Amino acid sequence: MIKPVGSDILRPLFVYDQDKHHELMHEAQGLPSVVISSQSAGNAVMMGGGYFTPLTGFMGVADAMSVAETMKMTNGAFFPVPVLNLLENVDAIRGVKRIALRDPNVEGHPVLAIMEVEAIEEVSDEQMRVMTEKVYRTLDMEHPGVATFNSQGRFAVSGPIQVLHFSYFHDDFPDTFRTAVEIRNEIIERGWKKVVAFQTRNPMHRAHEELCTMAMERTGADGVVIHMLLGKLKPGDIPAPVRDAAIRKMVELYFRPNTAMITGYGFDMLYAGPREAVLHAYFRQNMGATHFIIGRDHAGVGDYYGAFDAQTIFDTEVPPGALDIEIFKADHTAYSKKLGRVVMMCEAPDHTKEDFVLLSGTKVREMLGKGIAPPPEFSRPEVAKILSDYYQSLGK
Amino acid sequence: MIKPVGSDILRPLFVYDQDKHHELMHEAQGLPSVVISSQSAGNAVMMGGGYFTPLTGFMGVADAMSVAETMKMTNGAFFPVPVLNLLENVDAIRGVKRIALRDPNVEGHPVLAIMEVEAIEEVSDEQMRVMTEKVYRTLDMEHPGVATFNSQGRFAVSGPIQVLHFSYFHDDFPDTFRTAVEIRNEIIERGWKKVVAFQTRNPMHRAHEELCTMAMERTGADGVVIHMLLGKLKPGDIPAPVRDAAIRKMVELYFRPNTAMITGYGFDMLYAGPREAVLHAYFRQNMGATHFIIGRDHAGVGDYYGAFDAQTIFDTEVPPGALDIEIFKADHTAYSKKLGRVVMMCEAPDHTKEDFVLLSGTKVREMLGKGIAPPPEFSRPEVAKILSDYYQSLGK
Repeated sequence: MIKPVGSDILRPLFVYDQDKHHELMHEAQGLPSVVISSQSAGNAVMMGGGYFTPLTGFMGVADAMSVAETMKMTNGAFFPVPVLNLLENVDAIRGVKRIALRDPNVEGHPVLAIMEVEAIEEVSDEQMRVMTEKVYRTLDMEHPGVATFNSQGRFAVSGPIQVLHFSYFHDDFPDTFRTAVEIRNEIIERGWKKVVAFQTRNPMHRAHEELCTMAMERTGADGVVIHMLLGKLKPGDIPAPVRDAAIRKMVELYFRPNTAMITGYGFDMLYAGPREAVLHAYFRQNMGATHFIIGRDHAGVGDYYGAFDAQTIFDTEVPPGALDIEIFKADHTAYSKKLGRVVMMCEAPDHTKEDFVLLSGTKVREMLGKGIAPPPEFSRPEVAKILSDYYQSLGK
Repeated sequence: MIKPVGSDILRPLFVYDQDKHHELMHEAQGLPSVVISSQSAGNAVMMGGGYFTPLTGFMGVADAMSVAETMKMTNGAFFPVPVLNLLENVDAIRGVKRIALRDPNVEGHPVLAIMEVEAIEEVSDEQMRVMTEKVYRTLDMEHPGVATFNSQGRFAVSGPIQVLHFSYFHDDFPDTFRTAVEIRNEIIERGWKKVVAFQTRNPMHRAHEELCTMAMERTGADGVVIHMLLGKLKPGDIPAPVRDAAIRKMVELYFRPNTAMITGYGFDMLYAGPREAVLHAYFRQNMGATHFIIGRDHAGVGDYYGAFDAQTIFDTEVPPGALDIEIFKADHTAYSKKLGRVVMMCEAPDHTKEDFVLLSGTKVREMLGKGIAPPPEFSRPEVAKILSDYYQSLGK
């Protein structure tokens, strides 16, 4: 099986020994504590589940700077993005060895993890600037990732962590949330050797479905792990149970048995485009995937990144040998009226836009809201039905 | 956390090391092999997932007899029922050390496990009779469990196994099938201390739902693991996705967040009533539950067992100290028109049958098939809708 990045085994930082867990929860109640940023909470959850193996906790500034500039820590180990625990105020934890990290996203801010504090460092303007520019390729504060990164505070509190809770992900996404440990085990249980990972946070229309099938065929994979980015809903988002039901129905009807796993992970999107694509590939290797689909403008936002920057970074910037997972480079897929099947758009150079069945997201939502099914070349009718029922229920 | 039965840690017999798994699959292709019975396949899957810890494989006749008579193996270790690999014909494996056990339930009979053969023994008529009578409390061949047990053959092939596949359970029940390892981990991840387990193989109507809530309240549990018996469909069974959707909808709407896990296990029902109830409690302890709900005629069939035999056996026959899991003894639950809520029927001694909202399974299916919703006191309307849509689709 493909090994985790830089490690023979996965090292989830969640404390699975219940006695130890109980003891640490008890200890945490008496520790000085801080409410961490949502981004840091996402990082803690990812480390808890083994996705960031072999990291043992939050990076210090030297490692974060080194990672931002070269994707390597000061000890030479590969990591795609800084994993900083940035805080505005550290008065409560000055000079303390062990602290509790509290969850910003759950009522009452329960303890998420215990940290063994190695350093509290102030990050300079210049350091913030360098990290921002290297990771996001822009300093524009209109960029949502840049804005979030720069609004967390300037004190980097670093050190190894023991994770005690997976935040709200088990509550809100009980059927879907999975650790890298669980996905790795299930890949073995299912007897898969080659495994494609697919990133999504939306219901999947036919183009996405057939992209997964295409990737499996071309790589000779045994199955695809549909791996959803889970997070708090924003206005206009489709609720998790509806999205899940739509994806499950698609898998039930249009995938052969034992060729798709439906899973999700808890994390805050960085919108860092190419750099985030590398992070995405990193944790897909850790969960046991051998191939990762990266399409147009992966993890991008607005027009900050070129359409294929998130693919070329693997050839130009990722240190050779750093990752074993292979990138399945994709373009948009769509149904070709000429060919009567879904194709990758770049592979139909003789086609014009009119030769494809294309619909904007807005248009599709509008149709579904009126109970009009999008054409079957665009949406599987059974999937459209689930989404349509939901959109129509909003009007009532 | 509650410990597995007779062991400090869970010992799943599935081979999780992928290199080792690959090597064993390769070895298995060259080994003499036998297609085992469906019951044995279920046992292998249960051992694979850690549910039968600390068993290391199929029992020899001395252990099986000892277990049937005293619920103890010859070394004194507790186990509720014989776990025999009974075969009709062993010509292909006489004198062989290692054999492949093939799956009777999957096309092409793929390898399910490798066994290190310790003994091949012929079971005598008398031994079959003793085991049948002790386990099933009857020799009546009309009893489906007795018939199945006695139709598997007379050669007991015993020895430790390494499990390589979970049969068809990942294919047919991808969202629901779970190993004891997974459930144990998720209990810790969810931060539950006291955990009730609930056995079902059907969609849950309001009486079942409120029985779970009642058990959680009375035991002070943090959550309930709804643990479905999974298996091949029989004519008239509700398909797994429909049953799952109905149970998931119930949990989504009527359980507080993080108080219910929806899971399942792959096994062939024995219909052994009281003895099977003990087995059920055994593997619920192994998956981390602290309490197990046992109602009227648990795991029974016809009128072979008294209504509460499956409860009293824990007081009269299970060796003291053998199990740490506690039994939550229940009666049927139903909505009381007098009290305006769901009650345990034995706790309303002044009620007559007419005071409850009771409907036969046949009646409910008939109503759902006609699109008539059962009264809300009997079925949650959102659950009834899912079942009704299914039954009505059958007519089309």
